[in-house]
Amino acid sequence: MLFFTQCFGAVLDLIHLRFQHYKAKRVFSAAGQLVCVVNPTHNLKGAPPCTCPLFSCPWEGRLEVVLPHLRQAHRVGVLQGAEIVFLAMDMHLPAPADWIIVHSCLGHHFLLVLRKQERHEGHPQFFATMMLIGTPTQADCFTYRLELNRNHRRLKWEATPRSVLECADSVISDGDCLVLSTALAQLFCDDGGLAIGIAITATEACSSEAEV
Amino acid sequence: MLFFTQCFGAVLDLIHLRFQHYKAKRVFSAAGQLVCVVNPTHNLKGAPPCTCPLFSCPWEGRLEVVLPHLRQAHRVGVLQGAEIVFLAMDMHLPAPADWIIVHSCLGHHFLLVLRKQERHEGHPQFFATMMLIGTPTQADCFTYRLELNRNHRRLKWEATPRSVLECADSVISDGDCLVLSTALAQLFCDDGGLAIGIAITATEACSSEAEV
Repeated sequence: MLFFTQCFGAVLDLIHLRFQHYKAKRVFSAAGQLVCVVNPTHNLKGAPPCTCPLFSCPWEGRLEVVLPHLRQAHRVGVLQGAEIVFLAMDMHLPAPADWIIVHSCLGHHFLLVLRKQERHEGHPQFFATMMLIGTPTQADCFTYRLELNRNHRRLKWEATPRSVLECADSVISDGDCLVLSTALAQLFCDDGGLAIGIAITATEACSSEAEV
Repeated sequence: MLFFTQCFGAVLDLIHLRFQHYKAKRVFSAAGQLVCVVNPTHNLKGAPPCTCPLFSCPWEGRLEVVLPHLRQAHRVGVLQGAEIVFLAMDMHLPAPADWIIVHSCLGHHFLLVLRKQERHEGHPQFFATMMLIGTPTQADCFTYRLELNRNHRRLKWEATPRSVLECADSVISDGDCLVLSTALAQLFCDDGGLAIGIAITATEACSSEAEV
């Protein structure tokens, strides 16, 4: 009887793995980049769940496990320092596509999301925003700056980062981010790559808290 | 015989005035703002004609008479100083619409064109660019900066001005200008008005020429 129970359990596990593989494959095809699907099934009680900022990833989890998820499932790199340069390659890839990097400074982790999306059919645009891996109250203590600089043109966007507890989709649909048409992005590109200068500063009111 | 010749001349003048009035009225309706039509009929030999930067105005004339045309026909204001603030009112007006101002500094006249236009149907956007009332070679000697600043957000665009001998339409369709969605413009608006900080500097290579 025990043998049959174990066999049944193994078959269930195989069906589950097959289902996970199918979902991962589907997401991979939709995004045009390597995106793995991870479905945590525990530790979700008590805290508001946070969705993965990548548009194609159905992951949900607690704020504390967003960074491990991004690093392990999406192999997102982490750059240290107050001012960094992020080079997004292959900007010609068809929409939808995401380029992301974690920027670690001032005792926090910030996530740059650069998304290529067709909000108007046939006219893909680039949207760039910075999200704090933290609460909205913590996010209000910072200012981020994105800067593009090439061909005698310079474009700077400064704003308060959003919290990853908010949805990246809504930030983009609100238009409250750096927006580039493909024509303008092309002017800032060098050999298919777009260099984005990123800087984070703590606002005066919260600077003591941020430095902790 | 002389009496009949004079009568015939007067009738011709009346027909001409009536035609001008009809054209002015048509342009007025199309633009949703006061735009008069002036057709210069002389002094066009030898120099390339320059079209009026306002999208609805069919005027053409020499570079030297662009400024008098803008001031007299469109009542465009002139602001002096290296750094100025231009306040565009009634941003809610339906597209297409133009807001323009002449910025006089460093011995030249620059024209700020802010245009509301629907490049994608049902989705009006704002396009802002700076044009030198001068040749492309003269324009290459300067850099302009447009800056929006409100609600903890700042957007800066720096580029080389274009010459008014180029067409404002092509600058906008190339996307080589400051572009704002209506949602983003709304975030920078205060009571329906959009304040744009404008600064002009001479590039190092041409600074001696520009100061003449």
